[in-house]
Amino acid sequence: MGYGSSREPSALLVEPVARLVEEFSRLPGIGPKTASRLTFFLLRADAEQSQTLAQAILEVKERVSLCSRCFNITVGDLCVVCRDATRDQRTICVVEEPLDVLAIDRTGAYRGLYHVLHGRIAPLDGIYREHLKIDELVARVKSEPVEEVILAMNPNTEGEATAFLILRDLAPLGVRATRPARGLPTGGDLEWADPDTLGSALEGRREL
Amino acid sequence: MGYGSSREPSALLVEPVARLVEEFSRLPGIGPKTASRLTFFLLRADAEQSQTLAQAILEVKERVSLCSRCFNITVGDLCVVCRDATRDQRTICVVEEPLDVLAIDRTGAYRGLYHVLHGRIAPLDGIYREHLKIDELVARVKSEPVEEVILAMNPNTEGEATAFLILRDLAPLGVRATRPARGLPTGGDLEWADPDTLGSALEGRREL
Repeated sequence: MGYGSSREPSALLVEPVARLVEEFSRLPGIGPKTASRLTFFLLRADAEQSQTLAQAILEVKERVSLCSRCFNITVGDLCVVCRDATRDQRTICVVEEPLDVLAIDRTGAYRGLYHVLHGRIAPLDGIYREHLKIDELVARVKSEPVEEVILAMNPNTEGEATAFLILRDLAPLGVRATRPARGLPTGGDLEWADPDTLGSALEGRREL
Repeated sequence: MGYGSSREPSALLVEPVARLVEEFSRLPGIGPKTASRLTFFLLRADAEQSQTLAQAILEVKERVSLCSRCFNITVGDLCVVCRDATRDQRTICVVEEPLDVLAIDRTGAYRGLYHVLHGRIAPLDGIYREHLKIDELVARVKSEPVEEVILAMNPNTEGEATAFLILRDLAPLGVRATRPARGLPTGGDLEWADPDTLGSALEGRREL
């Protein structure tokens, strides 16, 4: 028997089990085998663990929203970073995803603000400028005392394209635009970079 | 800084997000990185997907129970196999987990009944005879028209130990006890087989 046959739904799989396997399989990086494992693990585990997990899944959608200023995730109107007056208000670090904020903050090398685009320009996936929080960034640069914008998109083709698109918008505003040093491995994913590499890349950022 | 640092909870991670990451991390084979990915995926996805997933997790615990006869998973009292009168009632295949039932049934090579032990003897993990459905198996062999019991525990030390313990219980009952053949896996490479497997394959060689 090869791997393929394991994808066939078994006639013996009862409906609630088959449905949970299917729901787990819809998550990124979870194949049918892992989905089965997770399902049968929950079947064996305490009812309490399933309830806590289900509750956590629902609450994350109900309670978490986007910061009205930087579009980072938040509970309440402004995120932890935007509420923190001790952070350097003259620097905005622009990233693709909320996870990137965590990755950068973990380095300890950055104490400014953030701006989350929620994606990158990817015409093949139908993601264009208007789908990203670029206008919102431009508005911030105009209204806030911003001196430097760090374009920390992923160091790959789509990230570069997004950075240069934003650069074009920022150029007339007389703000300094920088990009983290290419100490980051080309073709990699910012979220997976180790904090040291990411920290050095931020420190070595260069004028565009 | 290496991988370890990514396990530190970030001060920026809002509570509902941190909690879902933690809940996902409690699942087998899900590390903190994967847990983050899943959490942020759900944050981005439709609210409907989170609700369906949470609902499926709760329903699997509420609606699924164990078959009162063979301890396979079921909705209702008896499982699909036990309800199926066309299955060979003279053979019981004993397995460790419900997932093993699915694996065996998928082969199409077996049309008898099952009995799920829900574990294997593992003294180091504190799992002894009384934690498994062994007494229930003995009771079935005594009360049902069983002629053969296939001991299909995993082919490892703990599985073997469990099989031999059950064999001792079955011996006085005059029922045939068998074990699936040990040998080379189909599609495998003789050169890569471990000495144990290769040894079993040679010992169990069959006339062509």
